[in-house]
Amino acid sequence: MEIKKLLVANRGEIAVRIIRACEELGIETVAVYSQADKEALHVRLADEAYCIGPTAAKDSYLNFTNIMSIATVTGVDAIHPGYGFLSENADFAELCRECNVTFVGPSPEAINRMGTKDVARTTMKEAGVPIVPGSEGIIKDADEGVALANEMGYPVIIKATAGGGGKGIRIAKDEKELIKGINITQQEASQAFGNPGVYIEKFIEDFRHVEIQVLADNHGNAIHLGERDCSIQRRLQKLVEETPSPALDEKIRQKMGDAAVRAAKAVNYSGAGTVEFIFEPTGNFYFMEMNTRIQVEHPVTEMVTGIDLIKEQIRAASDETLRFKQEDVTFKGWAIECRINAEDPDKKFMPSPGKVEMYLPPGGFGVRVDSAVYPGYDILPFYDSMVAKLITYADTREEAIARMKRALGEFVVEGVKTTIPFHMRLMNHEKFVSGDFNTKFLEKYDLTEQSTNSK
Amino acid sequence: MEIKKLLVANRGEIAVRIIRACEELGIETVAVYSQADKEALHVRLADEAYCIGPTAAKDSYLNFTNIMSIATVTGVDAIHPGYGFLSENADFAELCRECNVTFVGPSPEAINRMGTKDVARTTMKEAGVPIVPGSEGIIKDADEGVALANEMGYPVIIKATAGGGGKGIRIAKDEKELIKGINITQQEASQAFGNPGVYIEKFIEDFRHVEIQVLADNHGNAIHLGERDCSIQRRLQKLVEETPSPALDEKIRQKMGDAAVRAAKAVNYSGAGTVEFIFEPTGNFYFMEMNTRIQVEHPVTEMVTGIDLIKEQIRAASDETLRFKQEDVTFKGWAIECRINAEDPDKKFMPSPGKVEMYLPPGGFGVRVDSAVYPGYDILPFYDSMVAKLITYADTREEAIARMKRALGEFVVEGVKTTIPFHMRLMNHEKFVSGDFNTKFLEKYDLTEQSTNSK
Repeated sequence: MEIKKLLVANRGEIAVRIIRACEELGIETVAVYSQADKEALHVRLADEAYCIGPTAAKDSYLNFTNIMSIATVTGVDAIHPGYGFLSENADFAELCRECNVTFVGPSPEAINRMGTKDVARTTMKEAGVPIVPGSEGIIKDADEGVALANEMGYPVIIKATAGGGGKGIRIAKDEKELIKGINITQQEASQAFGNPGVYIEKFIEDFRHVEIQVLADNHGNAIHLGERDCSIQRRLQKLVEETPSPALDEKIRQKMGDAAVRAAKAVNYSGAGTVEFIFEPTGNFYFMEMNTRIQVEHPVTEMVTGIDLIKEQIRAASDETLRFKQEDVTFKGWAIECRINAEDPDKKFMPSPGKVEMYLPPGGFGVRVDSAVYPGYDILPFYDSMVAKLITYADTREEAIARMKRALGEFVVEGVKTTIPFHMRLMNHEKFVSGDFNTKFLEKYDLTEQSTNSK
Repeated sequence: MEIKKLLVANRGEIAVRIIRACEELGIETVAVYSQADKEALHVRLADEAYCIGPTAAKDSYLNFTNIMSIATVTGVDAIHPGYGFLSENADFAELCRECNVTFVGPSPEAINRMGTKDVARTTMKEAGVPIVPGSEGIIKDADEGVALANEMGYPVIIKATAGGGGKGIRIAKDEKELIKGINITQQEASQAFGNPGVYIEKFIEDFRHVEIQVLADNHGNAIHLGERDCSIQRRLQKLVEETPSPALDEKIRQKMGDAAVRAAKAVNYSGAGTVEFIFEPTGNFYFMEMNTRIQVEHPVTEMVTGIDLIKEQIRAASDETLRFKQEDVTFKGWAIECRINAEDPDKKFMPSPGKVEMYLPPGGFGVRVDSAVYPGYDILPFYDSMVAKLITYADTREEAIARMKRALGEFVVEGVKTTIPFHMRLMNHEKFVSGDFNTKFLEKYDLTEQSTNSK
């Protein structure tokens, strides 16, 4: 079904990104906004814009009823959920289906299967996607856990199947910790989630976060668009992403890509999705999770493949057949993204909301800026603190880093603290430049101003 | 010789462009500026900046002595002249040579041979580059002109060999006009340039302006980077440029590319240069002139080839060997550039200088902005009226145009009139979209607001 009018159920840069893609496709756009967001850029850029409720996300951007009312009243054919908010909410996708509005994303069934950790793990195993060694589903008791751990070796990680977001997780370094941990986690999970089920996995300490972008249609076709290395994280929050990964060779890239395509096919995936992997220095990789939506870091993939992921999402949602076969996808150059946030990198990344007095994004060759900020814009404390995604693209990693430093250096954001100085220090850091790092990089190296100045 | 420090003898977006390339290459930069330009962006971005004189270009950006003094005092290895100003001044290139400062551009000899129209024409003919049919050098008298014109057919164009910039040129539709025209042009040229010599060429009325980017080194290597179609002009001023050209097929592209490389080799060219051709609907093309410098429209070539032309200029000037052979150059996608000027397109493009109160360039996938404007910047009446070069890049021409419309639509420039509305009308114009146009497009179609609204 052709999409002629689309509601963007999001805010910030991703709402702007989606509106841009729609404009280029000749699709009319409807923006929605909370009361606090009435001056937001996505509101100005869309063809129509409607307030959907008070400032709190639960009353606005997460408000099923209000969003669906606007969709109905404006007569849109589709809703794009962006990332965060309703993007991985199977109930909302289900509501869209019931209301006969196309949800730009996979089916509620696919969202559900990937959203339930234990089910996803089993599904992946069946599809031949490597998973972290561990129990087959829920363990009966601590004894079963101990037996398994003795086989796999310590440390192991205990996970509540109903947990998530860092909750219901415990690491055990030896048998004593394991027995205690299983018991406590079961008790906690029972109380917190109403489900005491836990399973155990080998705990992998040193790894890179490498993910594969997939693209699929409603007709059973799925391809991958290469990897992104997102190992530079702070408390599971990605700060910098790049493609290709400095750690992958062609053989592993292909194996990982194939595994991601199998993962997508196993849940009849449609649209753009990301299969995240734990990547070990040995070259082994294991399924971590699948994000059933567009990711913040999708632009780096767009730069090296030339493929517009938002447009492809919309095409897939319109029932179009994928326009690319795997062999049509070519990769050229190197792309890096720095997430510029309104945070103070020298004060534990404390949010620094406020009015952006002066704003001048960098420009020129190989520089892309995705942002919803403008001079005079008020960065609100209620939502994420993103100022801009700054992406540089060049022939080589070295040149992309040089370009990033150049672009960071000319980026003017006055009125709020930003992570620009942090990124500048990172781009100058020997270990980052070498490409030899993992997700513990920021635990290991202190990139605060004081620390780097005293060196 | 390695360049470690470079003086940018220019202003505006091209000065910013050069500083960016230098930063990425790790080269220190020295900016120079006129008194009126002390708040300019290139001054802020360079490592050092020095005032070189009063506002008038002849006293500052064209002031050999002052520029060379700063070069000497700051100890730069090289001077990049950008475009305009001193970029095609052989005497300045010669002065650089004498002062042992690398001039980022070809030799004074190459500049001279291409800058003297008659010599260029003869040199091209000898090199096997097609030239417009006409006299072999200067004609003796009107009789010789008449005999030639009878062979070629009318109309013909009479050109003073020492003329230039639209002066010393006259068109003749028949014998009577020709005889009269030769006599008048000889008299005028004698008075104006101290050289009465004129030559005649067949006058080609309907043609596209298609030019070839070349890249050469000091070691005899030269390649081309494809064409740019710059047929959308107003009074010989380019407004929109794109690559590839909608009018070229692979065969002609190759022929034209080969001709351009021969042209460059014929003058021992070095660095980046552009060979401009008259392109007839028949597929015939003729040498127009060679610009022995970087062109305003160079970014479109960068987008489709991935080659950074400013960096390559600097590398060539450093005596490096070209890093690409012809077969290494690949072309992908389509790029269009719109020159956004502070001019009123509905009042004959009258300059509209003044303070830019609000400035927000477009962003996102496939959008590049090269500009020296910032919020609060004062666009001065003394120099060119450029606000920004807006470049879009996509897989196809259709998508690049859609992206350009999207980008034009979100470009915010408040406080001065700009050509943004003109470009928007052009991008929506059926004839432009079809790709079927020539340099007379803007004579033929009225794109003022009144005219397009009344349709």
